[in-house]
Amino acid sequence: MNARVVLAYSGGLDTSVAIPYLAKMTGGDVVAVSLDLGQGGEDMESVRQRALDCGAVESIVIDAKDEFADEYCLPTIQANGMYMKQYPLVSAISRPLITKHLVQAAQEFGGTHVSHGCTGKGNDQVRFEVSFRALDPSLDIIAPARDYAWTRDKAIAFAEEIKLPIEQSASSPFSIDQNVWGRAVETGYLEDLWNAPTKDAYAYTEEPGLGNAPDEVVISFEKGKPVAIDGKQVTVLQAIEELNRRAGAQGVGRLDMVEDRLVGIKSREIYEAPGAITLIRAHEALEDVTLERELARYKRLTDARWSEEVYDGLWYSPLKRSLDAFIAESQEHVTGDIRLVLHAGQIIVNGRRSPQSLYDFSLATYDTGDAFDQTAAKGFVQLHGLSTQIANKRDRDGGFPTSANGQ
Amino acid sequence: MNARVVLAYSGGLDTSVAIPYLAKMTGGDVVAVSLDLGQGGEDMESVRQRALDCGAVESIVIDAKDEFADEYCLPTIQANGMYMKQYPLVSAISRPLITKHLVQAAQEFGGTHVSHGCTGKGNDQVRFEVSFRALDPSLDIIAPARDYAWTRDKAIAFAEEIKLPIEQSASSPFSIDQNVWGRAVETGYLEDLWNAPTKDAYAYTEEPGLGNAPDEVVISFEKGKPVAIDGKQVTVLQAIEELNRRAGAQGVGRLDMVEDRLVGIKSREIYEAPGAITLIRAHEALEDVTLERELARYKRLTDARWSEEVYDGLWYSPLKRSLDAFIAESQEHVTGDIRLVLHAGQIIVNGRRSPQSLYDFSLATYDTGDAFDQTAAKGFVQLHGLSTQIANKRDRDGGFPTSANGQ
Amino acid sequence: MNARVVLAYSGGLDTSVAIPYLAKMTGGDVVAVSLDLGQGGEDMESVRQRALDCGAVESIVIDAKDEFADEYCLPTIQANGMYMKQYPLVSAISRPLITKHLVQAAQEFGGTHVSHGCTGKGNDQVRFEVSFRALDPSLDIIAPARDYAWTRDKAIAFAEEIKLPIEQSASSPFSIDQNVWGRAVETGYLEDLWNAPTKDAYAYTEEPGLGNAPDEVVISFEKGKPVAIDGKQVTVLQAIEELNRRAGAQGVGRLDMVEDRLVGIKSREIYEAPGAITLIRAHEALEDVTLERELARYKRLTDARWSEEVYDGLWYSPLKRSLDAFIAESQEHVTGDIRLVLHAGQIIVNGRRSPQSLYDFSLATYDTGDAFDQTAAKGFVQLHGLSTQIANKRDRDGGFPTSANGQ
Amino acid sequence: MNARVVLAYSGGLDTSVAIPYLAKMTGGDVVAVSLDLGQGGEDMESVRQRALDCGAVESIVIDAKDEFADEYCLPTIQANGMYMKQYPLVSAISRPLITKHLVQAAQEFGGTHVSHGCTGKGNDQVRFEVSFRALDPSLDIIAPARDYAWTRDKAIAFAEEIKLPIEQSASSPFSIDQNVWGRAVETGYLEDLWNAPTKDAYAYTEEPGLGNAPDEVVISFEKGKPVAIDGKQVTVLQAIEELNRRAGAQGVGRLDMVEDRLVGIKSREIYEAPGAITLIRAHEALEDVTLERELARYKRLTDARWSEEVYDGLWYSPLKRSLDAFIAESQEHVTGDIRLVLHAGQIIVNGRRSPQSLYDFSLATYDTGDAFDQTAAKGFVQLHGLSTQIANKRDRDGGFPTSANGQ
Repeated sequence: MNARVVLAYSGGLDTSVAIPYLAKMTGGDVVAVSLDLGQGGEDMESVRQRALDCGAVESIVIDAKDEFADEYCLPTIQANGMYMKQYPLVSAISRPLITKHLVQAAQEFGGTHVSHGCTGKGNDQVRFEVSFRALDPSLDIIAPARDYAWTRDKAIAFAEEIKLPIEQSASSPFSIDQNVWGRAVETGYLEDLWNAPTKDAYAYTEEPGLGNAPDEVVISFEKGKPVAIDGKQVTVLQAIEELNRRAGAQGVGRLDMVEDRLVGIKSREIYEAPGAITLIRAHEALEDVTLERELARYKRLTDARWSEEVYDGLWYSPLKRSLDAFIAESQEHVTGDIRLVLHAGQIIVNGRRSPQSLYDFSLATYDTGDAFDQTAAKGFVQLHGLSTQIANKRDRDGGFPTSANGQ
Repeated sequence: MNARVVLAYSGGLDTSVAIPYLAKMTGGDVVAVSLDLGQGGEDMESVRQRALDCGAVESIVIDAKDEFADEYCLPTIQANGMYMKQYPLVSAISRPLITKHLVQAAQEFGGTHVSHGCTGKGNDQVRFEVSFRALDPSLDIIAPARDYAWTRDKAIAFAEEIKLPIEQSASSPFSIDQNVWGRAVETGYLEDLWNAPTKDAYAYTEEPGLGNAPDEVVISFEKGKPVAIDGKQVTVLQAIEELNRRAGAQGVGRLDMVEDRLVGIKSREIYEAPGAITLIRAHEALEDVTLERELARYKRLTDARWSEEVYDGLWYSPLKRSLDAFIAESQEHVTGDIRLVLHAGQIIVNGRRSPQSLYDFSLATYDTGDAFDQTAAKGFVQLHGLSTQIANKRDRDGGFPTSANGQ
Repeated sequence: MNARVVLAYSGGLDTSVAIPYLAKMTGGDVVAVSLDLGQGGEDMESVRQRALDCGAVESIVIDAKDEFADEYCLPTIQANGMYMKQYPLVSAISRPLITKHLVQAAQEFGGTHVSHGCTGKGNDQVRFEVSFRALDPSLDIIAPARDYAWTRDKAIAFAEEIKLPIEQSASSPFSIDQNVWGRAVETGYLEDLWNAPTKDAYAYTEEPGLGNAPDEVVISFEKGKPVAIDGKQVTVLQAIEELNRRAGAQGVGRLDMVEDRLVGIKSREIYEAPGAITLIRAHEALEDVTLERELARYKRLTDARWSEEVYDGLWYSPLKRSLDAFIAESQEHVTGDIRLVLHAGQIIVNGRRSPQSLYDFSLATYDTGDAFDQTAAKGFVQLHGLSTQIANKRDRDGGFPTSANGQ
Repeated sequence: MNARVVLAYSGGLDTSVAIPYLAKMTGGDVVAVSLDLGQGGEDMESVRQRALDCGAVESIVIDAKDEFADEYCLPTIQANGMYMKQYPLVSAISRPLITKHLVQAAQEFGGTHVSHGCTGKGNDQVRFEVSFRALDPSLDIIAPARDYAWTRDKAIAFAEEIKLPIEQSASSPFSIDQNVWGRAVETGYLEDLWNAPTKDAYAYTEEPGLGNAPDEVVISFEKGKPVAIDGKQVTVLQAIEELNRRAGAQGVGRLDMVEDRLVGIKSREIYEAPGAITLIRAHEALEDVTLERELARYKRLTDARWSEEVYDGLWYSPLKRSLDAFIAESQEHVTGDIRLVLHAGQIIVNGRRSPQSLYDFSLATYDTGDAFDQTAAKGFVQLHGLSTQIANKRDRDGGFPTSANGQ
């Protein structure tokens, strides 16, 4: 059987040159698959045509923006998905969706192989390949950058050799991945951790603090899903887009972090995710009002584990699925409005209202109307601390250092 | 035996009137104990004298600022202590220290009772009383506000009745607790969650975004302890004080949150903790560089549990002590410098350097000098995902909804 | 409005005398509610009549055996519910069901109060009262043993005083709670932790090792639910009953433990739960075959938290509900047969088969047919350990004690 | 530089033939290192000589029994180290110690390579290689069975070809790893999960239930370390050896499990670990008496994570080290005696006594002398359940399914 390689195609130099290269290496032909995930930039039809120009036998473009927002970004909002408490999983949640469409294309077009452009030291190879094998282990996987040590220099030389009809774009110092959920930037000078990022690293956000007037936004959620902004109904995609615009204009959503990659190394990463971070922050604030304390405490652990699982490429795993069930159940009452101010890089939540609120004015107030039975507290405190009291007594009686003196 | 009540004395109206009131209720006398925790405001000698004027048989003032910084704030930095991911435990860590000194005073002055001014619906009663019983369960505890339903109105009436020589301060709408680590504010109008806080709620921080020039700071840590700011050696107390000043001037460190109290209710709280939040943020950024991935992941769970334990009043508990041992061990390599910019309410970390860094340029770089063995990655990815691959195959073969399609 | 007390009625001396006592204390009347949870012993009609004889205005008996098995025992099997890794929550899961029926009776018969016979130092008061308030906080709660310091001696004196028509049963040294899921025993001589239990403590189990022939059983599960024993279809109730009989005959299911009560003290408890422990052991063994590794690891944490939540009286809590969702999702594939041998107090699992098995002979075998790609392992091991390798190098280079030498 | 391979040498056929094979493949010479970990069987001097006969340039034997017991088994006791709640890490804890001695030998004898006999589908390759790289990443690693697809058949053919002076032992169906802490058995017929193990699989344990008289043992611990058996002082090694003998004679300590390997597959394993399992069971029972409730609950999570970390080959990792610190602190009070009966495969704990006990008779008893303040309980229960009560009210008021009805 002839090889047919289904390639995750971005339209850039590397994957363009990969088309003839993969054809040559496998002796087969190449189907290019490009997804519109709201990454902006070039027109998708141009991307599609370029793949054909480079020799692809088929080239398809899929508008997956709403699918991405509804099935990949929304669960991330509900899980307050932040790896290392910071990174909203920008690339991590796009890879499983791209994979899903590549596998579908392979089934439609008789693909025998799937291919991606990732190197061997990043996370994305893991996310692609674990997902490929989860969805269709019969497909062979080719990662030229890793498996053939295929570098940009080799790609350029090969393009010239075969007179590939593409222009080499002006060399950019940045390596970028972006979609509607956010933008990831790597670049050589940031490999020195002491260097600060420069302004040209950013595209989704303005410099904070330029004197814009503060922007007050009310985000409404139903069962953990953003459904309106300032009272106007929105889809999840529209919510992300509008907040990318408004929060981005205020410089909100920049990250500069040192990240623990799954492959065992640390790397420096710059991210911009104005919409994502604003939505997660608002969602957390609403959970603070609508989730019972012990559920909230345990959900924070669950959220952290969910984020690690997704970061580690295990979107299509059994554990992810059970964590999803936990989270879905917890969202039943996460309904209400969060008012926040976007300004100078900051998100300031300053108002919440919810028909599902667990905040009870009559219990919380110190003013007239207080319904809290303070007499219950005395006994509560006594038994709450009893096991600690007994342990400290044991320590003192035994001449041990006690928990109390910390020695 | 005559009662002798050792009272946690703040110098304010309530605890001042409590002196004669406790004497009357117990038929004994009262020893006033005041701690300087860097709360600022009135001169401590005036506080000490006022207690005597109100009838205390002894009145002592303890300068516990350095003890507080070194033994209570520093562990909080090392645990990245944030309850509900936000609140740096401002009051929660002061109560066990105040308790410790009250118990010492009781032992010195023959106290039979200890007393605090907290109500029955807050967390501080728990922190005081669990700590009292841990340190000396033979002391009886009196909480007049809770146990005698002793209100401010009753206090004022009683003060007039006995002609107590104190002036009633102008009534403030705010109920405040503050120390060098931060400031907590409650007030009636914020009991409506939809109301935003007004400027007069704040004292440790300026309004963000007033056009101050950004302030760049380098904080140096040794084994998780802040030891220098901009190259100048500091004690922990000095670090907090300097950053309170500099971060506060930039509007950094304000919190507006709905909090899950231990007694089972939700409450609205405003906090300011410019130094605390800056130090914890810097410490986290340094941990990102110096802690190995799995240690870092597990430490985040440990930090969260530590914060809940301390919030819940269990500072002197056996679990806290074992969590401390975990955290102490983890800090061995948390040494290095963090550069950050304070501006317009934001803390922006933009540089890290550490002799203990686990970041390895030669493994991370995509440029010349790359030492990462990419050939290892292929097999890694394959086995990393194998159990998920097998599970998905089982699902498909059995006609089950698969983890992969999420249905 | 006149008081009407709905009483959890067991038929024993204490709750019998409580009927006139509660009537007297409240000036109202008493409705007795008794549940058949498979506890055996006395005929339920006699129990019902006795309540009337003691003065109850209504006395109802509810056969809740299947409801208990299906809605309370089955989730415990699926959560491998063992508090402190040992105790299968015998009383802990019965209290929320009894509460539910009491609240229903209160709604039906116009009850204003609910009442239970528990003391103030046990867990059951918590389970009853938290559940009462969750289901209907408008009902007042009376716990005579705790709230009125109502002791057995007082009960007997009162019964004599009012000439209550009940006989005082021969005094037993044991305090017992039992249902089809198990039996709990407390008794004075076991309050010395060094004393071993004597044979007369047990009723559900024979002495182990009496020379019975080993009993081999095959338990079949569908989605985590026991559906057949030795090929014969059973309800959950029947499964428990049959295994109570067969495992009990082999001395399986005895526990002697020191338990951490929620109220802060430790207590010595003897339990017998032959059916429960056999079913949970079989269920765990089937999960070992059918759950993917990371799901299994995380589910163990979830199971432990579920067990603590239920032990602590929080059956009707939001966290319990989200944990249930996680567990329910995980049970999708827990289908298959477990063969085990019951003998001399032991449960020995020695065979498993499952159409949903994740065990893959071709990957596991060392014989002909091995399909495992060993070449993948080398790279896997290298990157799996890379972050540890880098950390140890850092330690050595810095002259630090290394993780490797443990010093 | 000439290659010099330091080989983990067992004395068996495979590693014997590996000596000339490694010399041939590397063009260098081979140093054989054998550890006495209490595995019994052949005299260690014969093992040492055989390596020389097979061509090793050096052959050393290290008596590491006490080191193994004190530094590897003891931490496992203190962590109640059981992977998947069952497997006491028999091979998992020996690999890091063997590695340590191989690295020392490499440094002493100028080794350039280290080598082990593990295949590419097991856990032990991971444990060896992660530890090698942690301790000395400059050493090259050779795993002939995996890297050269070196099988037993090839080994025999090679031995004949070069006329190696070793006899081929009678072929055994079992693949075995054993040391004083336990024994692991794999064999072809158990690769069918429905087959039960046969008697000849076992060597450390007798068949249970043969009518031996029950054996009552008292094990004494100091700070989590076993120090005496039946009142006679023992080293940790002696404790394990004596309990291997006594528990083994009663058939205690057999395991038959399906295990989740780190490389992603499930495997069937038979283990025997009579001493290990008895010691861990006793240690757990003593912790039940001496650890405060919340510490005990959290330690169970920590123990599980510790066990996974060690199982996964990460003995020399930073996380393991911090977990060790937590566990070490928790053992401060784990001092006392546990009495248990070994009989017919069972371990029955029936007595505990400890000068560090947290069990308080006066709080636990229902008899005269009860010191528990029951009046505190009413308020405790009320606030313990308050957040659940509020959440259920919210659900009912909103017409939502409530946590209470589980629908």
